[in-house]
Amino acid sequence: MADELILLDFWGSMYGMRVRIALAEKGIKYEYKEQDVLNKSPLLLQMNAIHKKVPVLIHNGKPVCESQIILQYIEEVWPDKAPLLPSDPYQRAQARFWADFIDKKVYDGGKKIWATNGEERQAGKKELFEILKVLEAELGDKPYFGGDSFGYVDVALVGFYSWFYAYETFGNFSIEAECPKLIAWAKRCLERESVAKSLAGGKKVHEFLGEVRKMWGIE
Amino acid sequence: MADELILLDFWGSMYGMRVRIALAEKGIKYEYKEQDVLNKSPLLLQMNAIHKKVPVLIHNGKPVCESQIILQYIEEVWPDKAPLLPSDPYQRAQARFWADFIDKKVYDGGKKIWATNGEERQAGKKELFEILKVLEAELGDKPYFGGDSFGYVDVALVGFYSWFYAYETFGNFSIEAECPKLIAWAKRCLERESVAKSLAGGKKVHEFLGEVRKMWGIE
Repeated sequence: MADELILLDFWGSMYGMRVRIALAEKGIKYEYKEQDVLNKSPLLLQMNAIHKKVPVLIHNGKPVCESQIILQYIEEVWPDKAPLLPSDPYQRAQARFWADFIDKKVYDGGKKIWATNGEERQAGKKELFEILKVLEAELGDKPYFGGDSFGYVDVALVGFYSWFYAYETFGNFSIEAECPKLIAWAKRCLERESVAKSLAGGKKVHEFLGEVRKMWGIE
Repeated sequence: MADELILLDFWGSMYGMRVRIALAEKGIKYEYKEQDVLNKSPLLLQMNAIHKKVPVLIHNGKPVCESQIILQYIEEVWPDKAPLLPSDPYQRAQARFWADFIDKKVYDGGKKIWATNGEERQAGKKELFEILKVLEAELGDKPYFGGDSFGYVDVALVGFYSWFYAYETFGNFSIEAECPKLIAWAKRCLERESVAKSLAGGKKVHEFLGEVRKMWGIE
């Protein structure tokens, strides 16, 4: 029996984009089920009863939740094609460290820009720049975070690039002016079909976040 | 050449306890270097320049940071003895999910009890109970989170047990009254030498947190 693979996801989720990229890199077919994150479906609530969040990968009826855990699951079930993690344990730990850093910092830094105003937004810009500069320093002059090959940290970070236009527009600043190597890296990633077809458009994300601000009564 | 293994840790860190337990389970020898978390050493700042936190495992001069990443590193370098993660990918994903849930919830829930007063503390108690009840439901009637064997989720959670006395004393309540199965599980874990010798005493943790409260000007 062929594997049944369903992805519960939302077009704008940078975490969902990770899973879409990993599945595309490995050439794994799946059914995509778009979720309304503002009005969650019974299926999503059932499959991720604890966090109630996308993405959820349902493999033969069994759900796997949380994007990094899904990435590692995909890697372990389909290890042969397009490995995301390096084989060396120390390099794997380093990749996990930076993906974990991204999860702990980038979304919250960005949210302080798009979901606030005034001083709080200014503080958010400063915080996001500090985070992105740490990432740019780690990237250095390498083409990808892991070296010459597109891999785990690239997959973990690149979805945020589709939110950069919103950060820049709400914050009235340029990320490229401060972090040119990081933007060059994102454009390099976007040359891959797996990334290009998984990322959302920046203007669409900006418009969506404008709607969320209205709904939350901001401004 | 034999491996040189150094652990930078703090006696009261539930995250450091994870690493001590895993190394003890696998019978791996290492040098323990106690760190003053209120006055960080140049070695700690150098070895974990990004987060500046214990635990750090230094293997032949190379640092691995963040406790769950250290656990997985240990598992990958020394896979044969006392495996912490199950071999089945879906079970591994479940173990990672619950350890991640613990990391996202338990410390912050507990901190609202010991580092606040009044209404905020009451809210913290409610929050911590909700978290612990989710964990107790996941444990169910199994001896350990993964089933019959002590494993990854047990290692991730049991260090928090050494903070329960402080939560209960600052919050004036009993966790056992609400979560008897969870307490029975913790006592079961404590029958293992690896756990018994790694956990801090509850009264010592309570006293330390009292000092931290004073230092932070709480009360």
